[in-house]
Amino acid sequence: MTGSEIESLIQHLAKLPGLGPRSARRAALHLIKRREALLDPLASAMRAAADAIRVCARCGAVDTSDPCAICVDPRRDASVICVVEDVADLWALDRTGSFKGRYHVLGGTLSALDGRRPEDLNVHALVVRAAAPEVTEVILATSATVEGQTTAHYVTDRLAECGVTVSRLAHGVPIGGELDYLDDGTLSAALKARRPV
Amino acid sequence: MTGSEIESLIQHLAKLPGLGPRSARRAALHLIKRREALLDPLASAMRAAADAIRVCARCGAVDTSDPCAICVDPRRDASVICVVEDVADLWALDRTGSFKGRYHVLGGTLSALDGRRPEDLNVHALVVRAAAPEVTEVILATSATVEGQTTAHYVTDRLAECGVTVSRLAHGVPIGGELDYLDDGTLSAALKARRPV
Repeated sequence: MTGSEIESLIQHLAKLPGLGPRSARRAALHLIKRREALLDPLASAMRAAADAIRVCARCGAVDTSDPCAICVDPRRDASVICVVEDVADLWALDRTGSFKGRYHVLGGTLSALDGRRPEDLNVHALVVRAAAPEVTEVILATSATVEGQTTAHYVTDRLAECGVTVSRLAHGVPIGGELDYLDDGTLSAALKARRPV
Repeated sequence: MTGSEIESLIQHLAKLPGLGPRSARRAALHLIKRREALLDPLASAMRAAADAIRVCARCGAVDTSDPCAICVDPRRDASVICVVEDVADLWALDRTGSFKGRYHVLGGTLSALDGRRPEDLNVHALVVRAAAPEVTEVILATSATVEGQTTAHYVTDRLAECGVTVSRLAHGVPIGGELDYLDDGTLSAALKARRPV
């Protein structure tokens, strides 16, 4: 029906999360119709990103330099390390602008089901970093799921010898959340962690 | 937060239909983490498509050759032309495999609201093609919307002098459709167009 280059573009777009075969076809047509405005710049941006990306050897984040911009930023507080599961979590936390320390990306969670063992996570490098004299606190920002909490427990055990304070994100009612729509677990956690006004 | 190449990739991905800023970030991260398997091939596929795409001067379709593969295919029936609004409609019809003639892409519908006038549509070329002696039928496959039907009427008028049979797609109950969920317009059309068993 269409030339192989177009079919190939559709098939590759369909591998993006959030796009299926049908929406990939729509996206491809959208790009093709706006070659100068969309397709050319996107192709160039992809090539540039593919050439530029590096994994930071220090914290495990993805950036265009190694060590990453956060690890070398002198304005960042070197005494606090925030441990996240994934680069997406790092980006989400950093968008808030409320954390000024550095990060450490584990690269996933422990999971018996998916066969991810302690040695598959970037924990050893974290222990080495946390043992440095300037580090005083490690914040565990893993997900509030069973896997995330198991991983947090494991990391806490591993950090026991490092002489750092280990903390974790508060659990409770999300800002803007209506109590009526919240699950029992969140409500119990919010009650348990109640604070004097 | 991240290098400019990654930010640029996210911003360009966010312009795809079906992706917003948040899902573009997810898609970018998905690509970046799988550079060899996904990002490199997609970047190459995009570059190849951007270099290869042509608009067929004969029918208005998008392909990697001009005239397009359908217009030059000798197995295609040159006596029937199916008129569609858009390349996406051409692809949808051609995927069914039940039409063996050629196509003509109008490039939209008439629309007073959006300011699309007859001269903005690829109608003149259609009239020229339909006047050729080998063409006997023109099938109007515009949408069953007000704009689509207005456009179909206009095209029918313009084809009056060409000496071809003008037909349109049947309206009725979609295959697999439950009557209970159908709108009144479709049910009325299906009743009016009922056929002896």
